[in-house]
Amino acid sequence: MANQGKLKGIFTPNIVPLDQHGDIHEPELRRYTDWLIERGVHGLYPNGSTGEFTRFTPEERRRIIAIMADQTRGRVPILAGAAEANTRETIKACEYYHSLGVRAVAIVSPFYYKLSPNAVYAYFKEIGDNTPVDVTLYNIPMFASPIDVATVQRLSEECERVVAIKDSSGDLPHMIRMIQAVRPNRPDFTFLTGWDAALMPMLLIGCDGGTNATSGVVPEITRKLYDLTMSQEIEKARELQYKVVTLFDTMLLSADFPEGFRAALRLRGINPGESRQPYSSDQHLKMETITRVLACLLSDEGFADQPIGGCPVGAQKVDPDQIGRIVKGVLAELKERGLA
Amino acid sequence: MANQGKLKGIFTPNIVPLDQHGDIHEPELRRYTDWLIERGVHGLYPNGSTGEFTRFTPEERRRIIAIMADQTRGRVPILAGAAEANTRETIKACEYYHSLGVRAVAIVSPFYYKLSPNAVYAYFKEIGDNTPVDVTLYNIPMFASPIDVATVQRLSEECERVVAIKDSSGDLPHMIRMIQAVRPNRPDFTFLTGWDAALMPMLLIGCDGGTNATSGVVPEITRKLYDLTMSQEIEKARELQYKVVTLFDTMLLSADFPEGFRAALRLRGINPGESRQPYSSDQHLKMETITRVLACLLSDEGFADQPIGGCPVGAQKVDPDQIGRIVKGVLAELKERGLA
Amino acid sequence: MANQGKLKGIFTPNIVPLDQHGDIHEPELRRYTDWLIERGVHGLYPNGSTGEFTRFTPEERRRIIAIMADQTRGRVPILAGAAEANTRETIKACEYYHSLGVRAVAIVSPFYYKLSPNAVYAYFKEIGDNTPVDVTLYNIPMFASPIDVATVQRLSEECERVVAIKDSSGDLPHMIRMIQAVRPNRPDFTFLTGWDAALMPMLLIGCDGGTNATSGVVPEITRKLYDLTMSQEIEKARELQYKVVTLFDTMLLSADFPEGFRAALRLRGINPGESRQPYSSDQHLKMETITRVLACLLSDEGFADQPIGGCPVGAQKVDPDQIGRIVKGVLAELKERGLA
Amino acid sequence: MANQGKLKGIFTPNIVPLDQHGDIHEPELRRYTDWLIERGVHGLYPNGSTGEFTRFTPEERRRIIAIMADQTRGRVPILAGAAEANTRETIKACEYYHSLGVRAVAIVSPFYYKLSPNAVYAYFKEIGDNTPVDVTLYNIPMFASPIDVATVQRLSEECERVVAIKDSSGDLPHMIRMIQAVRPNRPDFTFLTGWDAALMPMLLIGCDGGTNATSGVVPEITRKLYDLTMSQEIEKARELQYKVVTLFDTMLLSADFPEGFRAALRLRGINPGESRQPYSSDQHLKMETITRVLACLLSDEGFADQPIGGCPVGAQKVDPDQIGRIVKGVLAELKERGLA
Repeated sequence: MANQGKLKGIFTPNIVPLDQHGDIHEPELRRYTDWLIERGVHGLYPNGSTGEFTRFTPEERRRIIAIMADQTRGRVPILAGAAEANTRETIKACEYYHSLGVRAVAIVSPFYYKLSPNAVYAYFKEIGDNTPVDVTLYNIPMFASPIDVATVQRLSEECERVVAIKDSSGDLPHMIRMIQAVRPNRPDFTFLTGWDAALMPMLLIGCDGGTNATSGVVPEITRKLYDLTMSQEIEKARELQYKVVTLFDTMLLSADFPEGFRAALRLRGINPGESRQPYSSDQHLKMETITRVLACLLSDEGFADQPIGGCPVGAQKVDPDQIGRIVKGVLAELKERGLA
Repeated sequence: MANQGKLKGIFTPNIVPLDQHGDIHEPELRRYTDWLIERGVHGLYPNGSTGEFTRFTPEERRRIIAIMADQTRGRVPILAGAAEANTRETIKACEYYHSLGVRAVAIVSPFYYKLSPNAVYAYFKEIGDNTPVDVTLYNIPMFASPIDVATVQRLSEECERVVAIKDSSGDLPHMIRMIQAVRPNRPDFTFLTGWDAALMPMLLIGCDGGTNATSGVVPEITRKLYDLTMSQEIEKARELQYKVVTLFDTMLLSADFPEGFRAALRLRGINPGESRQPYSSDQHLKMETITRVLACLLSDEGFADQPIGGCPVGAQKVDPDQIGRIVKGVLAELKERGLA
Repeated sequence: MANQGKLKGIFTPNIVPLDQHGDIHEPELRRYTDWLIERGVHGLYPNGSTGEFTRFTPEERRRIIAIMADQTRGRVPILAGAAEANTRETIKACEYYHSLGVRAVAIVSPFYYKLSPNAVYAYFKEIGDNTPVDVTLYNIPMFASPIDVATVQRLSEECERVVAIKDSSGDLPHMIRMIQAVRPNRPDFTFLTGWDAALMPMLLIGCDGGTNATSGVVPEITRKLYDLTMSQEIEKARELQYKVVTLFDTMLLSADFPEGFRAALRLRGINPGESRQPYSSDQHLKMETITRVLACLLSDEGFADQPIGGCPVGAQKVDPDQIGRIVKGVLAELKERGLA
Repeated sequence: MANQGKLKGIFTPNIVPLDQHGDIHEPELRRYTDWLIERGVHGLYPNGSTGEFTRFTPEERRRIIAIMADQTRGRVPILAGAAEANTRETIKACEYYHSLGVRAVAIVSPFYYKLSPNAVYAYFKEIGDNTPVDVTLYNIPMFASPIDVATVQRLSEECERVVAIKDSSGDLPHMIRMIQAVRPNRPDFTFLTGWDAALMPMLLIGCDGGTNATSGVVPEITRKLYDLTMSQEIEKARELQYKVVTLFDTMLLSADFPEGFRAALRLRGINPGESRQPYSSDQHLKMETITRVLACLLSDEGFADQPIGGCPVGAQKVDPDQIGRIVKGVLAELKERGLA
C-alpha cells in the first residue's frame, strides 16, 4: 500500500503545466502525473519549490493536490507541499490534504523573514501538534530559515507526527549530523535529500531517498541511480551520478529556477506552458541556447531528438571539451548569482 | 493634497494589531492609525515587512489597506504594500488599492526564489506597464531578490509609473550609485531608505526620506531626526541618530523580527496582540528581558514608564556601560544570525 | 608637531613603486612620498592593504618604512603597518618602527585563519601590552578576522597604547556602535574609515578621519572632501563624494586590488612599476580599457590628459549614460566577486 | 619508492611542536614524524593550514621541511607546503624543497586579497612553469581565493608540473565537476579532499585520497576509513565515517583552529607545546571542557585514558544524548562563526 510504512525512495517534485491563459492545465497535469508513475518514480511531491508553490494562490495550491491525488488513485504515495501564510492556514491545508489521502505533507521552514532556531521550532511544534497527517520538515537554507540539527532532533523527539526531513542543502556532513542526532531514538524517521548532484553519496552515507527535481524530467535515470546505489554497484552508480551532475547543473544553474527544468520537460513531450514569472527578451534568447544544450544531453541518453544542426558527436563520451564548456558556463552563472 | 507631488519624508510601516483570536483588530488598527498621524508621520506604509504582509491571506491584506485608507481620509498619503503571488494577482491588488485612493504602492522584489537581474527587471516591467497607480520598488536583499542599480535605472527610464525605490540594504555607497544612475534623467524619482540606523547620513547624501519601522513606535523621534537633518543641524541630528541606532538595534536584533517592535508598541499604549508566528517558551522568557530594556530606553525619552525595579539612572546619558551591555547583547544576537 | 596629539585627518595608504626587477624602487618611492606631502595629505600609511604588505618579505616591509620615515623627516605623521607572522615578530617590528619615529602602528587583525572574538582580543592584548608605540587596530572583515564592537571596547579600556581603530567595513551603523561604546571612556580614541565611498557620511556621524586609497591617487580631491565635510558645506561635499564614489568604484572594483590604483597612479606621473602578482593576458587587455576610463575621469578633474581618441564630452557632467555604463560595469564586476 | 607514481592515499598535515620558548621543538617534531609513519599514514604534509604555516617565518618554514625530510628518509612521500609572499619567493622555496627530495609541493591560492579567477590562474601558471618539483594546487575557499573548476582545468592542460589539487571545500558536486573537467585529459591528475567529514563519500565519488587533519591525531582511524572505503565495505566505512564526523567537528569547531587538534594530540602523548596565537582566559577555560570531551571520544576508541571523573558509559554506543549534546555545542559554535 502506498500510504503505509516508512517514507523512502525518490519523490518527484513536479512542475504544474499551465494553459495559454496562465491557468492550471488540468489535462496536461493529469497526463504528466501518469507519465511519471509509468516511469517508476516511488512517489510524487507536488507544491514544492520546483512546483512553484509561491506563485499560486491558496485555492490553486489545493486544486493541484486534489487533481493529482485523484489521478494517482493510490498507485504511489503523495507528499504534499502544505505551507501557507501562517500556522492556522497551514494546519487547515494539512487537514484538507489528509482528507484527500496523501501519505504525508512537506512543510518548508518559514521564509522571507529569517527566523531564529527557537522560532523555527515553535512553528513546526504548533503544526506537528495539531495536524492529522504525517509531516516532513523541509530545510532549504538558500531560500528559507534554516532548520538546524538541534531543532530536527527536538521535533523528532516531541512530535510523533513529524516523521521525516527533506534537506536541500547538499551538505553531506550536515546530513550525517542529523542522522546521528535523530536515528537512534527514531529509527522510523526518514532523511531525504533534495540535492540531486549528491544523491549517490547521500544514499551511501545513510539517506533513505530524495525529492529530486531531475526525476521530474528524467525519472528513468534518477530511478536507475537510486537502484544502482542501493545495490552498491558503486562504479556504475558513480558514472550515472556524474551524468546527473551535468544535467542537474545545466537545468538548475543556467536559468532562473525552475526554467531549465521547464525547458527540459518540453523536450520530453510534456507541455508545461509558460511561466508565471515573466521573461525579459535577454532571457528568451538565453533559453534557446540552453534548450539546445539540454537537447544534446537528453538525446545522448535517448530521451530527446538532437536539435536542428546536431550535437557534438557523442556529447558525453567522446567530447569532454564540450561538457567542459557547458560546465564552465554553468559555473560562471553559478558565480554570478553568488552561489559558488 | 496628500496624493500629489513627489514622495518624500518618513512613511511609517505599521504592525497590524490582532485580537485574541489572531484576527485583525480593526478598532485598534484605526486607533493606531490616528495615533501615528497625530504624531507627525508624513505618510503611512501598511503591508510592508514590519506589517508582516506574508503572514496574512490575500483577502486580509486588502482589508488592512481598506481600513487604513478609510481611517486616514486623505490626511497623509498611503504607500500600500501590494506584492501578491504573481504579477497577475499583484496587478489586481494595485487596481484595488488605486480605487481606495492610495498615493502609491510598494512592491517587494520577488522572494523565496533568488532571481537574476533580468528576471527582476521583467517582473517589475510587467507590473509597471499594467498598473494604474504609482509604483515604489522595494529592495530588501536580506529577504528578497536584490534589485541592482542597472535594473533600477532601466525601470526608471522605461516605466513612468515607477516613481521611487525603497532600499533597506543600509548600504550608503549603493544608495549613491542609484541616485547617480537615476536622478539626472528622472529628477522626480524618490529614494527612500528603510535602514533607520543610517537615516541621517542617508538623507545627507541625497535620500528623500525613509520607511522606518522605528517611526511606528517613536514617531516623534524619527520625525525630529528627519527635521534636524534636513535643516542641517548636524550635531543635534547626530546625537539623535545615535539614540535611534540603539533603539533600532534593540528592537530589530534582540528578537525575531518584528517582535521587538511589537513589544515596544505595547509600552506606548498600543495593543498589537500576539504574533501569528508562535513563540517557544525560551522566546517568551527572552522577551521579558527585552521589554525591560526597551522600557528603560523609552522612559529615558519620556515615552514610557520605567519598569518595576527601575532603570540604571539616566540610561543614555549617565551610564554608558549599560548601553554598552545592551549593544553587546544586540551584537551577539546579530552575529548569531550571521548578520555581523 | 607631527607626532603629538590625537590622530586625525586623511592618512594616505601608498603603493610601493617597484623597479624593472620587481624590487623596491627607492628613488620613486621617495619622490612619491614628497608628491603626496606636497598635495596636502595629513599623514602617510605605508604597509597597508593598498601597500600590498603581504607581497613583501619581512625585511622589505622594514625597509619601506625606513625609506619613507627618512624621506618624510617629520613633515607629516606616519602610521606604519606592522603586522608580521605572530605577536613576537609583530612586537619586534613595532619596536623598530618606534625607533624610526613613526606616530603609530596599524595592525591588521589576524588573517588567513578566521579567529573568534576572544582570540582576536588576546592577539591585540598581547601586542598592546608589549609595544612601545601607539597602536591602531585595523578591521577589514572582507580580508581578515573581524574585530567586533565588544573587543574594540575592551581593548580601549585595558590598553592605553591602543589609541585608534581603522575600519574598512564601510558600515555606518557599525561605526556608530563603536563610537558609542568607546568614546565616552576614551575621548582621545580615534576612529578612521578605510571606505572612501562613505567618507563624507562617516565624518558627519563622528569619524575623525580616514585611511583612503583614493588619496594616494588624487590627494587633492580627498583633502578637499575632508575639508568641505568638516566645515559642513554639505551640498559641495556631497557633490564631491559622488565623484569619489565613481572613482573609487572604478579603481577598486574593475580590477584585482590594487591594480586599478596602480593604473591611475601611472596617469598621474608616478611610476609604480609592475605588480608582483602576475597578470594573465586577459587581465592585460582589461587594464587597457580601465586605464582609458580612469584617464577620462581624471582628465575631467584636470589631473590627467584625455586618452588618445578622447573622452565623451564632459564625462561627469554632460553624459550620465557614460557614467552609468562605467558604474554598470563596475557593479557587474563587484557581483562577479560575490561582493554585491 | 616514495617519490614515484601518482599521488594517492592519506597525506597527514602535522602540527609543529613548539618548546617552552615558542621555538620549533626539533626532537618532538622528529618523534611525532616517526609516530605518524609507524601508524600507517601514506604520506606527510607539513606547512599546511593545520601546520600553521602563516605563523612561522620563511626561515622556520624551510627548517620544518628540512627536519621532517631528514627524519623521514624516504619512508613515505612528503607533500611540502611552499607558499611564500610572492611567486619569486615561492619558486625559491620550491627549489629548496625539491633539493630536499620532497615528492611534491602544495601551494595555497593567494590569500588575504580575494583574487579573480584570472589572477589565480596567472599566479599558479607562473609557478607551474618555473618550478622543478610537482605542484599540488590547494583550494580552501574559506581562507583563500577560490580556485574554480575552469582554472583547475586550464592549469592541468597547460602545466605538466601541476599534478594534483587538494580541495578543502567539502563540496561533493564541486569535486565531481573538477574530476569531470580534468580526468579525461589528465588521468594521472590527483584529487585530494581536505574535508575529513566527507572523506568516505569523496573517495566513493572518485577522489584519490585526502590531506586530513584528523589523521594527525588518530592516524589509525583515518587509515582504516580509507581502507574500508577503498575495498567498498560500505556499512563498516559509514559507521567509521560517522565517528570521524563527531571527532572532526569537535576538534575543528569547538576552538580556534587548530587548537582542538593540539589538545587531542596532547592526549595521544605528543607534546605540541603552546600555540603562538595567544589565548584569553575564556579560551583557557573552554579548552579544559573540550579536552574532557575529546578524552572521552578518544578513550572510547582506545586511544586515550578517560579523564578524571570518567565519561558517560560507552560514549559513542550507549549514550547518543551525550553525543547529541556535543554535536549541539559544536553546531552552536559553528553558527557563531557564521559557518552554518
